[in-house]
Amino acid sequence: MWTWNPQDDRPETTATAQVLADDDPALETPFIRELLRQVRAMDTFGAWEHYSDAAVIDPFILTPERKRAIPVVADPDGETVNRVRTFYNAVATRIEARTGVMAVPVINLSHEGFGRAFVLAGKLVVVDKPLRDVHRFGFASTDKLVRRGERLVDGAVALVERFPEVARA
Amino acid sequence: MWTWNPQDDRPETTATAQVLADDDPALETPFIRELLRQVRAMDTFGAWEHYSDAAVIDPFILTPERKRAIPVVADPDGETVNRVRTFYNAVATRIEARTGVMAVPVINLSHEGFGRAFVLAGKLVVVDKPLRDVHRFGFASTDKLVRRGERLVDGAVALVERFPEVARA
Repeated sequence: MWTWNPQDDRPETTATAQVLADDDPALETPFIRELLRQVRAMDTFGAWEHYSDAAVIDPFILTPERKRAIPVVADPDGETVNRVRTFYNAVATRIEARTGVMAVPVINLSHEGFGRAFVLAGKLVVVDKPLRDVHRFGFASTDKLVRRGERLVDGAVALVERFPEVARA
Repeated sequence: MWTWNPQDDRPETTATAQVLADDDPALETPFIRELLRQVRAMDTFGAWEHYSDAAVIDPFILTPERKRAIPVVADPDGETVNRVRTFYNAVATRIEARTGVMAVPVINLSHEGFGRAFVLAGKLVVVDKPLRDVHRFGFASTDKLVRRGERLVDGAVALVERFPEVARA
């Protein structure tokens, strides 16, 4: 016999509750603006239309509590893999914006969550990052997210400036 | 009630019977020697140990009959995808042999059999081929296989010679 269990009505755990404030200033940085554009562009059915910018970026933030909530041995889920792709899409788009050269993200991932992320500009490999433990992909804070993204973009821009002929080949 | 049906004992269809002769001279070309090394290196359990070189290369040959036997709408099977990977592994190894630069094959494929094959040498993209219709991957003859492989290798070698600094970066 089914009986009502007050546990079923338990509140969201702290691991899933939103941690980003709606007025986090990092939400206005060019990198996070681009990330927002990328996420919202993939939202074909408008499911996130009424979500604030902070709510859309929130899943990229991996607090120690959220980290503990991730199973140790599981394969990365589709949403996590999508976040990895979205992050490198944003990196590629920022590289394009700063260099005027088309940049193509290429993500190679095994089912176990290991692999490599590339961004290619012409015949130049401008980003080449090993991916490990993708089921734990995330950033401790928005500042760290922006810094990690911008560092990849800066490195890529420097490479395009060093080998312009290859990037335009 | 089950009754014996002579149809059950029908011989191999012409679509699956081996088409390569054991003395096909193309089997001695450097490209096919490398392809053989790649296939046999992946044969962890020695399943193909007693297969002749011709039998190992045979599945790379797509006769019109074999082409007709492939379902039109199916996703590429694991063996076909493995052949694509093996082909580009051989291309990358030949590039290494001819340039002395490490070359890394990167295959990006959707489940539907569309995607792109890259070979990267240092920070240089030395091969960049769109992949379509991967479930029909194959070559009309060993000559075509060798020519297609060597053309990719030649193009890559020319790029490494043109941008040596990038390939060694």
